[in-house]
This record gives sequence, C-alpha cells and structure tokens, in this order.
Amino acid sequence: MIKQEILDAFNFRHACKSFNAEKKISDEDFQFIMETARLSPSTFGSEPWHFLVVQDMEKRKALSGSFWGGDGKWQTASHLVFILARKEKDMTSGSKYLDHILKDVHGIPEEAVQQMTVFLKKFQEEDYKLTSREGAMTDWSVRQTYIPLANMMTSAALIGIDSCPMEGFNREDMDNILSSEFGFDKDEFTLACVAAFGYREKEPHAKSRQKMEDIVTYI
Amino acid sequence: MIKQEILDAFNFRHACKSFNAEKKISDEDFQFIMETARLSPSTFGSEPWHFLVVQDMEKRKALSGSFWGGDGKWQTASHLVFILARKEKDMTSGSKYLDHILKDVHGIPEEAVQQMTVFLKKFQEEDYKLTSREGAMTDWSVRQTYIPLANMMTSAALIGIDSCPMEGFNREDMDNILSSEFGFDKDEFTLACVAAFGYREKEPHAKSRQKMEDIVTYI
Repeated sequence: MIKQEILDAFNFRHACKSFNAEKKISDEDFQFIMETARLSPSTFGSEPWHFLVVQDMEKRKALSGSFWGGDGKWQTASHLVFILARKEKDMTSGSKYLDHILKDVHGIPEEAVQQMTVFLKKFQEEDYKLTSREGAMTDWSVRQTYIPLANMMTSAALIGIDSCPMEGFNREDMDNILSSEFGFDKDEFTLACVAAFGYREKEPHAKSRQKMEDIVTYI
Repeated sequence: MIKQEILDAFNFRHACKSFNAEKKISDEDFQFIMETARLSPSTFGSEPWHFLVVQDMEKRKALSGSFWGGDGKWQTASHLVFILARKEKDMTSGSKYLDHILKDVHGIPEEAVQQMTVFLKKFQEEDYKLTSREGAMTDWSVRQTYIPLANMMTSAALIGIDSCPMEGFNREDMDNILSSEFGFDKDEFTLACVAAFGYREKEPHAKSRQKMEDIVTYI
C-alpha cells in the first residue's frame, strides 16, 4: 500500500467534535470498521472486550448523561460504540471465559489448556503481578481495549470516516447503567472507553504534535 | 482506500514469534511506522509516551533479560521499540510537562492554559478519579500507549512488515534498568509495553477469533 496514502489518513483523523447528523455510515463500512476491531490482537489472544453499539437515541441519552465530553456527540454520531472490558471474573487464569476462548475459539486440546492455565497463573501472579491489588487485572484488560479502539479509528480514517474517542466518565455510574439498563454483569464487564463514528461537520484545526526527535531515542 | 486491502493487512498481522534476522526494515519504512505513532491520539493531546528504539545488541540483551516472552525476539527483530509511559509527575494537571505540551506544542495562550489546567484538575480528581489511589494516573497513561502500539502494528502490516507486541515483564525491574542504563527518570517514566518489528521467518497458524455476533451487541 502507498505510505503517503496511509499517512494522509493519520492526518485526516482527529477527535471530531461534532458530526453531520444527516450523514450515516453505511452498514458495509461499519461492518468493515468492526472487523478491524475483531481482528485486533490482545494479551494471550483473550479478546477481553465487548462492543455495545447504541443506535437507539433514548438509550444513547441514558448512557451519555454521566460521561464527560459526550456533549452533542451522542446526538450527532452515526454510530456510537461503548467498548467494555472484561474483569477479574473472566480474566483470571482458569476462568470459565478463558477456558472457552482457549478451547472453543483457539481449538487448543484439553491437556494443553491445562498447561497454559498453570503458565498463565504464574504470569498473572508472579511476573505481571495482576493479583497484587484489586483492580489490577481489570486495568490490564482495559488497556487491551485501546488496541481495537485505535484500530477502529485508523481503519475508519483510511476510508474517510471520522471518529472521536472518549474516556472521561465516572466508571461506577456507567457500570451501574450498563447493568441495570442493558443487563451486563458488573462482575464481568466495565466500561473502558467510548468511540463515536460519523462524518465531520466542519474542518478541524491543524494537527499539532511533538517533534519526532522529542519522542524517540535511538540506541 | 480499498477495504479488502486493509482487511488483508489485519489478517496478515500476527504476533510474530521469530523474525528473519538477515532482513532489516529500511529507514524509510521504519520512519513511516514511527510517524503513525507520532500522529496517534491521546487523552487531552498529552502524548504521554516516549519510544526507545534499541538497536545495540548488548543493550537489547540487558533489557530483555527480565521480560517474559522476549525469547529470541530481541535477537532477531529488525527494530525493537520500548514504549515508555509518563507517570504522575508529568501527567498531573499543572505539571511542567503538560504546561509545555499545551503552550509549546499546541500553542495555547497562557490564560487559556490556566483555564484548561483547572478543568483538567477537576477531571482528574473528581470525574475520572485518577488521584484516588497511587498509580491510577500512570495506568491512565499506560493505557494511552496502546494506541500508538496498535497503530504501529497496523501501519507496519499495511506495508508488509511483521510485528510482535510484548507486555509480560516485571515493571520494577525494567524501570530500574531503564533508569540505570539509559538515564530515564523513574519518577517520570515507566515501561508500558514493547513492540518488535521485522520480517517473518515462517508462516503463522491461521488466525482464530470469536465470531462477530459474540463480541458485538446492537441496541
């Protein structure tokens, strides 16, 4: 692929403040964006995420009330995606969820799954210290969701679609709504971030970034 | 851009276990990959990262000793990138670093910077609760680094370059090495993740993922 075309897409992408409410993303294009999320890598291939696409305006309103920076985006975005991360219950070695992923998704035989579980337990407890404090496992999981978040924004930009990432919310409030209104188990899921997609209403400011030499060191 | 070509790149990308040690990424291609990292979005445009590209084999050895899954990758990768995240000292509202970013990088006038600092303080303390426990601010920052991590892997794949993300290391050990051997201030930086780049030695297994309907809910 032509590098300049890809860089153009990275320059095209910006945190779109307000979308053209009349212009909707086609199903085919949105499926393409979701496919790049689905194919995203994650720690141990665990895919510790769920994507809640909220198109019902009343439901959007209920969810956008307690998050910061949502402003009018929930009203104008063509597609609004809440990215949920899986918590301790699902991510701890030997969990029912990880067992399912290893056996049913990756097709790993029972005996090898048992070995991997021992291995993962050591990694989680000793190497990566994910059991050292409450919430560390969930933070690990939340971190992974920023990979599909990035990929969705990049793939959207590559086909001329705008996006806006949002993470400023009170997690406890949001998880309560996701549980009471949408039936997500609070022991299994927490809201990691939100991404809005659509088409820009106006052109953004020029992009500003640190210089390359200020962010990279070669040794 | 043609969607199928982009999806082909997402399918081409895999966690490359071992690289062809003879095949090096050209400077132009590596600069392209780094440019997609540089153009990546981050919370409040704070760019809370630094990329340490370790090409000296002795230095690679020193850094790879205490991280898990590094195996032979540090020996065969064309380019090995340690992604560092900025910590509390830099990321807390009103810090010298954020002041520099707002004023010198984004060119925001003094008065507006002061307003934004008040705003950010509220966000960090009340909304996002990043001051509620030690380390929460750093976790927030580490999370952001997974955006350039994803973008670097995706942009590499788009031009036929392989990669492997790694995060299994003892952070304390790594931060000590980054401080003693490379002069990074432990109060400012922590290792978030590592990405190796190069060209595959052999073809990977077929990719396995959950089905789309198992990871997405539409409302």
